Amino acid sequence: MQGDALVIFTPSGKRGRFPVGTPVLTAARQLGVDLDSVCGGRGICSRCQITPGFGEFAKHGVTVAPDALSEWNAVEQRYKDKRGLTEGRRLGCQARIQGDVVIDVPPESQLHRQVIRKAATARDITMDPATRLYYVEVAEPDMHEPSGDLERLARALDQQWSLPRPQVTPPVLRKLQPVLRKGDWKVTVAVHRNHDEERGRIVDIWPGLHEGGIYGLAIDLGSTTIAAHLCDLSDGRVLASSGLMNPQIRFGEDLMSRVSYAMMNPGGDAEMTRVVREALARLASEIAAEAGVDPTLILEAVIVCNPVMHHLLLGIDPVELGQAPFALATSDALSLGAADLDLVGINPAAQVYILPCIAGHVGADAAAVALSEAPDKSEDLVLIVDVGTNAEILLGNRDRVLACSSPTGPAFEGAQISSGQRAAPGAIERMEINPATKEPRFRVIGCDLWSDEPGFAEGTARTGVTGICGSGIIEAVAELRMAGLLDASGLIGGPEQTGTSRCIPQGRTFAYLVHDGSAQNGPVITVTQGDIRAIQLAKSALYAGARLLMDELGVDKVDRVVLAGAFGAHVSPRHAMVLGMIPDVSLDRVYSAGNAAGTGARIALCNIAARAEIEASVHRINKVETAIEPRFQEHFVAANALPHATDPFPELSRVVTLPQVSFNAGGADGGGRRRRRG
Amino acid sequence: MQGDALVIFTPSGKRGRFPVGTPVLTAARQLGVDLDSVCGGRGICSRCQITPGFGEFAKHGVTVAPDALSEWNAVEQRYKDKRGLTEGRRLGCQARIQGDVVIDVPPESQLHRQVIRKAATARDITMDPATRLYYVEVAEPDMHEPSGDLERLARALDQQWSLPRPQVTPPVLRKLQPVLRKGDWKVTVAVHRNHDEERGRIVDIWPGLHEGGIYGLAIDLGSTTIAAHLCDLSDGRVLASSGLMNPQIRFGEDLMSRVSYAMMNPGGDAEMTRVVREALARLASEIAAEAGVDPTLILEAVIVCNPVMHHLLLGIDPVELGQAPFALATSDALSLGAADLDLVGINPAAQVYILPCIAGHVGADAAAVALSEAPDKSEDLVLIVDVGTNAEILLGNRDRVLACSSPTGPAFEGAQISSGQRAAPGAIERMEINPATKEPRFRVIGCDLWSDEPGFAEGTARTGVTGICGSGIIEAVAELRMAGLLDASGLIGGPEQTGTSRCIPQGRTFAYLVHDGSAQNGPVITVTQGDIRAIQLAKSALYAGARLLMDELGVDKVDRVVLAGAFGAHVSPRHAMVLGMIPDVSLDRVYSAGNAAGTGARIALCNIAARAEIEASVHRINKVETAIEPRFQEHFVAANALPHATDPFPELSRVVTLPQVSFNAGGADGGGRRRRRG
Repeated sequence: MQGDALVIFTPSGKRGRFPVGTPVLTAARQLGVDLDSVCGGRGICSRCQITPGFGEFAKHGVTVAPDALSEWNAVEQRYKDKRGLTEGRRLGCQARIQGDVVIDVPPESQLHRQVIRKAATARDITMDPATRLYYVEVAEPDMHEPSGDLERLARALDQQWSLPRPQVTPPVLRKLQPVLRKGDWKVTVAVHRNHDEERGRIVDIWPGLHEGGIYGLAIDLGSTTIAAHLCDLSDGRVLASSGLMNPQIRFGEDLMSRVSYAMMNPGGDAEMTRVVREALARLASEIAAEAGVDPTLILEAVIVCNPVMHHLLLGIDPVELGQAPFALATSDALSLGAADLDLVGINPAAQVYILPCIAGHVGADAAAVALSEAPDKSEDLVLIVDVGTNAEILLGNRDRVLACSSPTGPAFEGAQISSGQRAAPGAIERMEINPATKEPRFRVIGCDLWSDEPGFAEGTARTGVTGICGSGIIEAVAELRMAGLLDASGLIGGPEQTGTSRCIPQGRTFAYLVHDGSAQNGPVITVTQGDIRAIQLAKSALYAGARLLMDELGVDKVDRVVLAGAFGAHVSPRHAMVLGMIPDVSLDRVYSAGNAAGTGARIALCNIAARAEIEASVHRINKVETAIEPRFQEHFVAANALPHATDPFPELSRVVTLPQVSFNAGGADGGGRRRRRG
Repeated sequence: MQGDALVIFTPSGKRGRFPVGTPVLTAARQLGVDLDSVCGGRGICSRCQITPGFGEFAKHGVTVAPDALSEWNAVEQRYKDKRGLTEGRRLGCQARIQGDVVIDVPPESQLHRQVIRKAATARDITMDPATRLYYVEVAEPDMHEPSGDLERLARALDQQWSLPRPQVTPPVLRKLQPVLRKGDWKVTVAVHRNHDEERGRIVDIWPGLHEGGIYGLAIDLGSTTIAAHLCDLSDGRVLASSGLMNPQIRFGEDLMSRVSYAMMNPGGDAEMTRVVREALARLASEIAAEAGVDPTLILEAVIVCNPVMHHLLLGIDPVELGQAPFALATSDALSLGAADLDLVGINPAAQVYILPCIAGHVGADAAAVALSEAPDKSEDLVLIVDVGTNAEILLGNRDRVLACSSPTGPAFEGAQISSGQRAAPGAIERMEINPATKEPRFRVIGCDLWSDEPGFAEGTARTGVTGICGSGIIEAVAELRMAGLLDASGLIGGPEQTGTSRCIPQGRTFAYLVHDGSAQNGPVITVTQGDIRAIQLAKSALYAGARLLMDELGVDKVDRVVLAGAFGAHVSPRHAMVLGMIPDVSLDRVYSAGNAAGTGARIALCNIAARAEIEASVHRINKVETAIEPRFQEHFVAANALPHATDPFPELSRVVTLPQVSFNAGGADGGGRRRRRG
């Protein structure tokens, strides 16, 4: 055939005329169609798979003849024999245009394929990571025109991929020569280039086409737990997720006690830096093992964390964060080498990106939540609450976003609760108390049955019933209140007042017996007066923070509440509202965002434009400092009571009115005391 | 006074009119006059000292009134009381213009003051180092406009010094907060910005005005010795120079034997990397101690070295440098952190610059020689010979420059010589042999007397006479030849042939007895047949390299010879020419350049434009590869003989004609054997 042919790409709809004989990949590139290729069209990488359509396309007004593409060739056959190729697929670099044709680019062949779809915010994240693979053919050395192997590689990257003047890391320099020779001057390089960099950086190199994949870590470094996702940097898939306890807990459970530790113990900050870095390195190697991935193929990490974790990770004494004006050593996003953070085990040239902090008490984790939940793109007024040992709170819409942090303490994570534990199999995560009989029923993680259903004992035989996790204690306290076992001030009634022997004396106060596992050598699980106080303090702090932002914005209600954090994913919105943790709003306007900070880290790992976006938007977020705001204290004190003695959502539960309940048990509240039996 | 006044600066001659009341520093800056200031005109640093001139200035056509500058003020008085101020000097930031005035900027107040004047090449080097001090006043943190301390420091650097978006190193991040507070938000920062960088990097920070100075190391890393200069980065002064043996010698004396060691011993390259890095760190700390400088104030280093040292320093296996096509892993200049080279002890954020390599056998040391001696700026044809274990040879003029490297081996450095030693007190460095009596006289390092002068024994009592260094062995061999004790092939005659009992049998050959110190328990120092052979090989390699370049350029003589290297500084040009080490040229056209590679490193340390210049010019140097060039072998063989039996410079010495001399002593030459008695 001679002349030009019409080529229409779907789903983009891009079209153009090309000379007969043009490879599909070339046509796609000229039209700006998003078609992947690592090898640059050499028929090696198979990333450019396309699906030609044949026959009538009324919508496009074309008829595609059976010979609209060149014949299936030997390169394609070899690839198919070796690795398989879905029926109907062609390699875009091999198939040449012979006539008018409609070409579909399947999602997995799109370079900027969608990876994270945020339903709540209608936001799509497409793949555009900082680290990418490039296959290049490098000129061989010539004694008469001497130049280093690196310089010839750099020239190839510039000429073949328009990557000018790449920098190089010492580990790559060390392996450069043997790899170039092993690959017979054809190599794959991983180049890292951040959104604000003109020059990239070669982070690794492999002989020939590298088919082992490259990976990144999205890390949410919390005060209590460290969570990580291992992601494939080519398509954004999460290959494994894992977590471990922050070993700094032994220096203090909450942030301020760690700051105090650093202030009172010379070298204390360095010790905390050391243990958290060791934990990150261990987590990285564990998650790689879990996914069966060579840890040296982890080429990048994104870390989000609160300001105190941020400083301790970087080896900065956090003392300034413990006192007004709460000055951060640095607030902007940081790009570091893995070695700067002693992140051993992963690729030694791996690059680490840390999101910007918003303010002295509102960290990179809050920035990550903002990136994930995008309040600045919201039409309606959204309150986002990320509950950890500190709660990050964002309130706003596309006009304005406010942020603050509130020291809830670790109670919501099951710490400082007498029978508390982290969310793990055996932990009570749901609870109901019958308002008539005052008897509890509950569910534990790892078993779908309620405790009063047949088969529960068998279903929990392996794990036992070991304690109460964060979501369980919320439900327990709310149910105690609705069952008339707690008064509005949070006092547990005695057996005479409540009419149930489950209210047992404990010192000068009472506790509610949830489960006695002692016959099976298990623990006796109670909710103590101290537990109630710890939850009251935590929920008051959370509520006061949200109210403070609402005051600042001059509103007394919000349109939507997003509960984020591992806790937010599991807590019952109804019970949270019974407790008064969050402002009242229609239950169907409460959403769970899961680990939004972790999602934000993952977004920043997969998409460098998102980094630019959050770096710009943190400067537009208005920070409110709870620690020095007198109204925060007022709201905090006012929020101490348990407002709803009746279920505020009667359609979901029977109404029990207990306005008259009031107990007197001596005043001592045992707050903060810990007891665990069994 | 009102209105404008004329201000003329000398020596620049720059002039302009300024409103009365303008500080002299401000006027200087607006005119682009080179007047230093670290504190930005705050009357703290005193770098802006100027000398006003009063009275008639016919040349400039002005008369300067006694009150042309504002009165001596309290800031100046305080500075004078505290540190002293030369009579007649003023502080440019304090003295304000009141009337027409002539202002002299003394050399030490010039920011770009001249530091290295190269007479031979008429080249001046002015101070323009990559690392400079900047005094800044930083905004205090504001809770309501939260931004990190680093970000406010960066803003201050941009606003007060036009340094946009400085990067920061983790060690600086760690000390940032306490230093800002200790300095009450006034700090001095050292910023490193290389010639090809838009953004600088903060390498250190001090409270208030830092008055402790900042320093840099210029390091010449040779195969046998490592030499370093410690320079003041504000004025380029050399505070101390020091050296030590390259500990890699134990893995092989010359480069190729180290490459072999790496090839034959797994991990051998890593071991050599380790020991040389340790040596650099030790040298840095020793030189700092010698100069009485805090080693953490060493903020920069420039390193020059041959390609094998270059790769071993960087941790790159040098195996490719041992075989054609002699491909370098990297040839361009490198910028690294001190930690990348385990250069501990100096400032942990110190930056290291390594000059570019010219080719696989012509390294960054040759580039440094080219930078120092500037053959590309020479009108006449200059041959530059830098003799170390390898000789780097440059030949050319402003039209074209050629370079090669020639494997001379370590004989010129006193190694592989039976009584050889490095140039140190006690070593014979000069020698003469009386052609009539065949008796020697010599001088040793550390004593100005010849050995036959009264007082020599006392003068050398402390050091003794311990051996022969490189320049001594050159003179010894040349003198042996001119005294008729050696034939043209290099054979030492026996006592019967030469008529002197100083020619003593040694195996099947003879040796010449220079000094018998056995009565004083000192060594017996001889020149053996093996020594002659080692020098013949070395000088043949050197001469053949020079000839090869001359062939390439199509010339058979050169206009000028520059001898570089520690050896070049001490060798007698006359004796070198007697031996045939260098092509014949009039003796007054032979120059010693001292350690030109070290000087080149120092230039690159003091002036970033010089870095840009050498990076560009190495690409224009034509490389000639001796190892594969058949003519090199031909020249090498042809150069083995000792050409001059008579002194070629009779005006300097008596003529002794010995064309008939020819010995036969059995053929064995004992080359490479080592003997040392004593």
